[in-house]
Amino acid sequence: MNLKIFDRLESEVRGYIRSFPTLFAKARGASLIDEDGRSYIDFFSGAGTLNYGHNNPILKRRLLDYVESDGLVHGLDMATLAKKEFLETFERVILQPRGLSCKIQFPGPTGTNAVEAALKLARQVKGRTNIISFTNGFHGVTGGSLAATGNSKFRDAAGFPLENVTFMPYDGYLGSGVDTIAYLERMLADRSSGVDAPAAAIVETVQGEGGVNVASTAWLQALEQVCRRHDMLLIIDDIQVGCGRTGSFFSFEGTGISPDIITLSKSISAYGLPMSLVLMKPELDIWKPSAHNGTFRGNNLAFVTAKAALLHYWQSGEFQEAVRRKGNIMRGWLEHIVNGYQKGAFNVRGRGMIQGLVTDRPELASHVSARAFENGLVIETSGARDQVLKLLPPLTIDDAVLLSGLEILEQSVADVLGVARAPINKIKFINFRSGR
Amino acid sequence: MNLKIFDRLESEVRGYIRSFPTLFAKARGASLIDEDGRSYIDFFSGAGTLNYGHNNPILKRRLLDYVESDGLVHGLDMATLAKKEFLETFERVILQPRGLSCKIQFPGPTGTNAVEAALKLARQVKGRTNIISFTNGFHGVTGGSLAATGNSKFRDAAGFPLENVTFMPYDGYLGSGVDTIAYLERMLADRSSGVDAPAAAIVETVQGEGGVNVASTAWLQALEQVCRRHDMLLIIDDIQVGCGRTGSFFSFEGTGISPDIITLSKSISAYGLPMSLVLMKPELDIWKPSAHNGTFRGNNLAFVTAKAALLHYWQSGEFQEAVRRKGNIMRGWLEHIVNGYQKGAFNVRGRGMIQGLVTDRPELASHVSARAFENGLVIETSGARDQVLKLLPPLTIDDAVLLSGLEILEQSVADVLGVARAPINKIKFINFRSGR
Amino acid sequence: MNLKIFDRLESEVRGYIRSFPTLFAKARGASLIDEDGRSYIDFFSGAGTLNYGHNNPILKRRLLDYVESDGLVHGLDMATLAKKEFLETFERVILQPRGLSCKIQFPGPTGTNAVEAALKLARQVKGRTNIISFTNGFHGVTGGSLAATGNSKFRDAAGFPLENVTFMPYDGYLGSGVDTIAYLERMLADRSSGVDAPAAAIVETVQGEGGVNVASTAWLQALEQVCRRHDMLLIIDDIQVGCGRTGSFFSFEGTGISPDIITLSKSISAYGLPMSLVLMKPELDIWKPSAHNGTFRGNNLAFVTAKAALLHYWQSGEFQEAVRRKGNIMRGWLEHIVNGYQKGAFNVRGRGMIQGLVTDRPELASHVSARAFENGLVIETSGARDQVLKLLPPLTIDDAVLLSGLEILEQSVADVLGVARAPINKIKFINFRSGR
Amino acid sequence: MNLKIFDRLESEVRGYIRSFPTLFAKARGASLIDEDGRSYIDFFSGAGTLNYGHNNPILKRRLLDYVESDGLVHGLDMATLAKKEFLETFERVILQPRGLSCKIQFPGPTGTNAVEAALKLARQVKGRTNIISFTNGFHGVTGGSLAATGNSKFRDAAGFPLENVTFMPYDGYLGSGVDTIAYLERMLADRSSGVDAPAAAIVETVQGEGGVNVASTAWLQALEQVCRRHDMLLIIDDIQVGCGRTGSFFSFEGTGISPDIITLSKSISAYGLPMSLVLMKPELDIWKPSAHNGTFRGNNLAFVTAKAALLHYWQSGEFQEAVRRKGNIMRGWLEHIVNGYQKGAFNVRGRGMIQGLVTDRPELASHVSARAFENGLVIETSGARDQVLKLLPPLTIDDAVLLSGLEILEQSVADVLGVARAPINKIKFINFRSGR
Repeated sequence: MNLKIFDRLESEVRGYIRSFPTLFAKARGASLIDEDGRSYIDFFSGAGTLNYGHNNPILKRRLLDYVESDGLVHGLDMATLAKKEFLETFERVILQPRGLSCKIQFPGPTGTNAVEAALKLARQVKGRTNIISFTNGFHGVTGGSLAATGNSKFRDAAGFPLENVTFMPYDGYLGSGVDTIAYLERMLADRSSGVDAPAAAIVETVQGEGGVNVASTAWLQALEQVCRRHDMLLIIDDIQVGCGRTGSFFSFEGTGISPDIITLSKSISAYGLPMSLVLMKPELDIWKPSAHNGTFRGNNLAFVTAKAALLHYWQSGEFQEAVRRKGNIMRGWLEHIVNGYQKGAFNVRGRGMIQGLVTDRPELASHVSARAFENGLVIETSGARDQVLKLLPPLTIDDAVLLSGLEILEQSVADVLGVARAPINKIKFINFRSGR
Repeated sequence: MNLKIFDRLESEVRGYIRSFPTLFAKARGASLIDEDGRSYIDFFSGAGTLNYGHNNPILKRRLLDYVESDGLVHGLDMATLAKKEFLETFERVILQPRGLSCKIQFPGPTGTNAVEAALKLARQVKGRTNIISFTNGFHGVTGGSLAATGNSKFRDAAGFPLENVTFMPYDGYLGSGVDTIAYLERMLADRSSGVDAPAAAIVETVQGEGGVNVASTAWLQALEQVCRRHDMLLIIDDIQVGCGRTGSFFSFEGTGISPDIITLSKSISAYGLPMSLVLMKPELDIWKPSAHNGTFRGNNLAFVTAKAALLHYWQSGEFQEAVRRKGNIMRGWLEHIVNGYQKGAFNVRGRGMIQGLVTDRPELASHVSARAFENGLVIETSGARDQVLKLLPPLTIDDAVLLSGLEILEQSVADVLGVARAPINKIKFINFRSGR
Repeated sequence: MNLKIFDRLESEVRGYIRSFPTLFAKARGASLIDEDGRSYIDFFSGAGTLNYGHNNPILKRRLLDYVESDGLVHGLDMATLAKKEFLETFERVILQPRGLSCKIQFPGPTGTNAVEAALKLARQVKGRTNIISFTNGFHGVTGGSLAATGNSKFRDAAGFPLENVTFMPYDGYLGSGVDTIAYLERMLADRSSGVDAPAAAIVETVQGEGGVNVASTAWLQALEQVCRRHDMLLIIDDIQVGCGRTGSFFSFEGTGISPDIITLSKSISAYGLPMSLVLMKPELDIWKPSAHNGTFRGNNLAFVTAKAALLHYWQSGEFQEAVRRKGNIMRGWLEHIVNGYQKGAFNVRGRGMIQGLVTDRPELASHVSARAFENGLVIETSGARDQVLKLLPPLTIDDAVLLSGLEILEQSVADVLGVARAPINKIKFINFRSGR
Repeated sequence: MNLKIFDRLESEVRGYIRSFPTLFAKARGASLIDEDGRSYIDFFSGAGTLNYGHNNPILKRRLLDYVESDGLVHGLDMATLAKKEFLETFERVILQPRGLSCKIQFPGPTGTNAVEAALKLARQVKGRTNIISFTNGFHGVTGGSLAATGNSKFRDAAGFPLENVTFMPYDGYLGSGVDTIAYLERMLADRSSGVDAPAAAIVETVQGEGGVNVASTAWLQALEQVCRRHDMLLIIDDIQVGCGRTGSFFSFEGTGISPDIITLSKSISAYGLPMSLVLMKPELDIWKPSAHNGTFRGNNLAFVTAKAALLHYWQSGEFQEAVRRKGNIMRGWLEHIVNGYQKGAFNVRGRGMIQGLVTDRPELASHVSARAFENGLVIETSGARDQVLKLLPPLTIDDAVLLSGLEILEQSVADVLGVARAPINKIKFINFRSGR
């Protein structure tokens, strides 16, 4: 595989090409196919962008029809038919059934742009500059979002001090016995703590880049209470784990919390096309016309596929049910790995179809990832020290492919540890498949 | 035309829908077609994103073929065949003939993301935080870029002080007699001026959003000299006026300057698809792997159309020649308006196919824009007070359509002023058309 | 007492005049005397500036002699005889016996100026911008120091966001069971916590303004270990509790820690004259000449009295011993109040001759302070909610006056609570006085 | 002269000891006397702190009396007799005759502290963060003031980016033909200039540290107009050139401008004792109690001498008249130097008794200063490159001493240039002395 031109021409900033060193040409569903025709099972899904798989045929048909008919492609924030139909569908299929009333902003089509818009709005609404973010949070790498992103790999590249954000410990950060919300409450209640009154808190319900850290329902509820008590907005960044990843459209469904602002991107277009949304409670919409803009904020191809996905996957509960079922398969198999190999070397955490296989040392995780790639599985590491193998298969993955992927993962673990595979009761997973 | 859903659901931040209140459905070349089948000539081109027109058939074929064949759509920064072919083509068609040696970064697919990456890199390279930007400059609205953007409409929305950028007067800002580079030099040479040593200057050769302000070659050369003298990088933001807009691929060709970093976006994908690039001199590429990332930095559909456009339009000088010719038509007609109507009410400035009809008062410009829309022409205003009508037709526009658009513009001016059309020698423009 | 001119002419920012509304004219030792000749016992000591009492006769003689002889008063940072003699004395009496090797900076003559200089130096030495400060810390109200000061009363007055400081919980902040240094260690060790690598930590061993919060020796030692582990400087701000207040010249003596930078002010001049010092380990002295200046950095009158105090009080251990003895008297009496009045209404904390009577509600503390003033005792409140009565008598106070002051304090507590004085065994305190 | 202890113990930050390397012991009037009894004429006056000379006998008597009688020395912002009498006197002698109505704040006793308070107040009043400062301006080196100070020698020592201040060209900065206020107006009027709406402009009427740059009356008036037009406060920093230096108590008297805030320090105490004031228009006094504090804000010794100076020097016009007359002597002699030595090597500028002998190269100025010191004259350099010899004799200097100092200065110039003294008509200066 000749990748020389990338070495010669592409900046040193390139990353995934180093982890997955082949030349990808095509992709279908949960399969990535390289130039030589080798196929890989995709447990990466564009970091959560391809929840519906690659080149999903249902969406593809709509996309081709639209392009063929000279549908408007680029529209800034002019009114377009594709945008109108997306709005109507989003309202009818997503918002109304969930009893959500909100205004929708189309910022630039990337996640970080949605976060930038959300933070600006929160600061304008409250007239304060400070924002609470959480350890290991990832919200993007443009100036405003980067200040709310914890990882020093990104922060140090800014070249200037990142300000106006205070970091607080995420759920579980200080160990299972420590109530980190109590600490947040203490710092905010004490007018002499040095923490300036915040406009908002921004949080992921599951931290994807941060290492598949899962906030409990109780913690999220307590966080919302803190926000209400201190007149702060609650922003849920659902860019990576929204759009069905955890088993419901929004990741916070079922917790009872009512975020003031929600950011969506990655899988919202459903086809890997750049798109992002900011949802805000109507009374917060104090934006002045054009005060936040962006050339690609009207990516109509994305509106077309987004609408198609909403219509196909979200009008009944079937899809969500399947996600939960497959999430259980993943969880079950990972627990088998945790229990079947070196005691204490692994742990598992996650929700729905985002699951993390936590290792006790970074090199173990990266070795398993590299070995998995050799074995035909694309899986990335995450976390502050890249110590967590993050499983993000397409939500639409077939059970058989999912099980194959899990088997490759386990084999790669065994390979790296230099041990034989632990015996597994496959019937259990087939049961998962057919039932429950 | 029913736009109620936008009023009800879309945030108040929406802008262009207010200027062009119809529902666009389809588009071809220089034509926008609304739901009722009404056609508008497009002198807006997605703010410079559609240099090759809407749904350009040459590019469209490639796009459809790629999607149909299940070409990989979303690839983060993994190696893909589409990306490889784009890189090869960009090197062969653009870089080599111009004697440019550089490394290429694919940041998130929006212009502001390219600017964020460029500013980070400059600050890292020089170990300084300050950046010189210019009055009326526009570089995007995410945190880092926004600090370098002049317009208070965007700045005030940030909700916190924007820092680490010093604004200096652009060419002509203080009137035609004042050498604004001399002022910059004075402030930098004086170690007691209060202006901290900058890492870089970032500048547009023609300020599109800022009101079609054109920097002279001499000014750009003097700016480069200042950068060399004070050990600063020179960043050319060619997002709006690159990709052929001024008559050459890069807007600074022919000036003799050698930028250290160049940002491209908007028309680089050629089809209205989100994509952006940062070009940097190879010795500046001190990026650490993954230190700047972004979910959509590998938009392969954009790579496919970008490559196709380079192959079709940029292998000979024909396209550039046509841009210059049509730019002259535009300029000639605008000068006719300047001379043919109220003395002093209008002025004209621009380069190639970005031309501005400057009015002496904002309401005049917006009235003409609104009237033009009624008359079937989409044209936007720009500048600090929206006092400049900005003409940005697709570079591929047919002469006949271009002349029709100019005629509508003139008619709209006459309508707003309540006068008859001034007599015009159309032969002159037909001559432009056929020969020159 | 006519205070009208203050109401008419002095800014609303005035503070203590509201707590102690009389016109003070003279002062001697621990006594403040107002215009009408009424005398007050001073448990305030200029917020720790008058450790040696008002108009201490030993120092006064030196001051008068110097002024009478036309000794140089104002010297910027020229070499003066008074400064030379202070340096010689400080080295011989303070530094050498404690085995301290350091360079001495004379910044502007206020505490905040010393802190500003210390923070600048730390940032220069480490090439980092972030500083760790602690909840309820007070380090001054000029821009740089204010960012490290916790109280929002001061912070909110800045009018712009205060940056480049991260606040961490002080010893005991989260309750007696919680190891706050473990939290600090976790945030610093995790490169994804969002806390940028700090240049230094700045801390008071006893937080005076913050409410007489006392850091334990173990906590200070653990903090030093964190600093060493993460390559940070340790700055002890000894402005309020240095110069003998806790029973040793520096408050951290006996803890075994070795601060990199120490700030001193308040009582260093010994006579209430503005003066401050920054002590730094010699290898940290990377200052460039004049890079930090200040008109009054050579206050020679202060050097004269400072030297005299060092000679008189610090050449033997007698003075320190007396401070500890009187500190025990104070503590004993306060414990009597804690135990003798409403259960749980009071608590006591402190070290040496800084002791706090902590109330369970702010209005109680301020009522006691106001009542004490009526009864002839000047005592201020401190803490985030002004809930702590802070006892800061001159270190030179006579035992009899100290006991009188404590008796007035207790009487004021009884008055405010509307109860009779609790019986007290005065013999115990007389024993304290004579022996122990 | 043994200065070894300074080399050994004092930080490298020390400055003036390097320029004037002797050990000063005593001082009287305009004379500094070193340990060996050598006397120097003082053309430095503590950088403007000793307008009334060293150990002025009139003030000294008051100071001694006060100390001897146990007058309260240190009072924070409690009401004291000394403070009351200062306020009464300042109101009667300074404010009322000039028709000034204002509230008075006593911040920490240094100039930078007054500037910090002024900037905070302006930002609070206007609810904006940006401040306009001017090239070569000096306002102090604590965080908030430092951001408004131009010299990179000080700025670079901060260790973090200094923000929330925009620098504009001072009067004459771009050459005599350029109206720098027009530039300021352009940048503020254009809402797209990148300069955020400021809360205030802060300016010195004569920039002392900046190189004795003099703002014309017309320029100051135009600046005030800009402030009014853009709803900004006008802050006059009169710390160095107030208190009579330019020939009137405030330096802006006679210009007709009406500053919103005035800062005073240096010579306000009249005896070299730390003291500073912020004067504000009454309606701006929105300070909350204690929101800006400082241990030494009630330096009662300074109040005593300040009052005495006001009574002695400012109740008639005689003192001001003498200042103007002596200023003319200085100016005349300096013009003699400009004209009598190398053509173009020198220039002169200044107002009243602050005059600068501007050289065409920094080493010339420092050589003259060093030579003057050898010849018995203390005179410092100022300006961005230390290219200006700044003459700041005490305002109370005897004519004979002034002339001697000027003669030494001229001799030092001649020495450095290696030429003979130019002939001078001394009668002219004696005439100055006796008359005019």
